[in-house]
Amino acid sequence: MRIGILGTGIVGRTLSGRLSHSGNDVMMGTRDVASLRERDDQEEPFARWHTANPGVKLGTFAETAAFGEIVVNATSGLASLEVLEGIGQEPLNGKILIDVANALDFSAGMPPTLAYCNNESLGERIQQALPHTKVVKTLNTMNARIMVDPRGIGNGDHHVFLSGNDPIAKRKVADYLRIWFGWKNAIDLGDITSARGTEMVLPLWLRLWEALETSMFNFKIVQE
Amino acid sequence: MRIGILGTGIVGRTLSGRLSHSGNDVMMGTRDVASLRERDDQEEPFARWHTANPGVKLGTFAETAAFGEIVVNATSGLASLEVLEGIGQEPLNGKILIDVANALDFSAGMPPTLAYCNNESLGERIQQALPHTKVVKTLNTMNARIMVDPRGIGNGDHHVFLSGNDPIAKRKVADYLRIWFGWKNAIDLGDITSARGTEMVLPLWLRLWEALETSMFNFKIVQE
Repeated sequence: MRIGILGTGIVGRTLSGRLSHSGNDVMMGTRDVASLRERDDQEEPFARWHTANPGVKLGTFAETAAFGEIVVNATSGLASLEVLEGIGQEPLNGKILIDVANALDFSAGMPPTLAYCNNESLGERIQQALPHTKVVKTLNTMNARIMVDPRGIGNGDHHVFLSGNDPIAKRKVADYLRIWFGWKNAIDLGDITSARGTEMVLPLWLRLWEALETSMFNFKIVQE
Repeated sequence: MRIGILGTGIVGRTLSGRLSHSGNDVMMGTRDVASLRERDDQEEPFARWHTANPGVKLGTFAETAAFGEIVVNATSGLASLEVLEGIGQEPLNGKILIDVANALDFSAGMPPTLAYCNNESLGERIQQALPHTKVVKTLNTMNARIMVDPRGIGNGDHHVFLSGNDPIAKRKVADYLRIWFGWKNAIDLGDITSARGTEMVLPLWLRLWEALETSMFNFKIVQE
C-alpha cells in the first residue's frame, strides 16, 4: 500500500519505519528535502535514520500527499494547518487523512497549553480546511512506540480512540491499525468534534509522564 | 469522623450516604435548608432521599464547612467559587478540602465546554480563593457510583488521580479513599495545577459515555 507520512520527527519516523519494514510503499514528507538531509541539529540526524530505513522515500509535503493512497499527518500540531494549506485540497481530495498530531504550545513555558481547545480542536480545524478529505483523528493519546506496538505494554490490553465524520473511513482506519500495528481495542468516539476529547487528554498525559517517570503507558477504559 | 459535604446533588448524596452508612458523622450543606426540604423538582426529591439516609445532618454551606474536620466540594462546578466565597476562608482554614467538582458549561448547548480550561482549572481557582486550605482535587474523572465503589467495575483495577500542593494532605486523602471506598490505585499527579489534566478529561469522558452507552467505566493507566 502507498502511504504518505507528513512530518519527519519522532512520530513520523516511527510510523514510517514500521510501515516500510512491513512491506508498504512509504514516502515521508518534509518542507525542504535537501535541508532535511543536511540537518544535524536533531538527537538523531535524519540522514543516519534514513540509512537504517532505506526503503522510505523522501519527498516534499505536496509530493507525499499526492503519493499516498492514505496520508498521515504527523507534523508538529502547531504547524499542521500551515503545512496542509500549503499542500492544498486537491492532492488530498477523497482520501483518508489520519491525524495523529497534538498542538502543544510551549511558548509560555511548562506546562504547555493547547493551541486549540474546549470549543475547537486541531482535528476539526483540519477537517474544515480539507472538506473533501476524510479526516480521522487517532493515536494522539500515546507515545510513538506504543502507536506502532501496542503489545509492548500490558499485552495490548488498552485502548486507541477514533474521531471522524465518515463511519466507513473510521472502520477502515481501525482495520489498518489492527493490521499494521496489532491494535485490538479501538473505540469510535463519534464525529470529528470528539477530537476535542482526545486532544484535551494531553495535559493529563504529560502529568502522568512526570508522575510515572516513563512515557510507556496508555489509557484503558475499564467497564462493568 | 466529622465530614462536611457541600452540595446535595447526585454526587453529594452518593458520597454522604456512603460515608454516613459506614459510621462517619456527616453533614450535607446547601444554600437554603428549608427550601431544599420542600423542593420536588428533582428526579428524587431530597426529602425522600433524606428519609432513606436519616443519619445525614443538614446545614447551610457555612455550617457544613465549620462542622467538617474534612470538607468535600460536591457543588456544581459553575457555582463552586461563589459558594466557597460565600462561606469565607475562616471555617476552612487549615482543613483539607476535597474538590470533586467539574465546571461544565452547558449554556451553548451540547457538548458542554469547560468554564476553566487550558491555563487554569477550577481546582486552582479554589486553592487561590482559599490560600490556607489544603485543596486536593480527586474523584472528578468518574461517575458518583464508581467514586464510592471502585470494585463495582473491573474488580477495582483502575485509577483515581490526586492533585494538590500539600503532599501530606494528598497522602491522607489517598488513605481516606482506600478506607472509605476501597480505592487501591491512586496516582499523585503533582501540584494543584495538575487539576487541569483531570478536569480536561471531561470532554473525552462525555464522548465515552455516549459511545459506550453507559457511565459505568473508568480510566486505567496501563504500564510496561
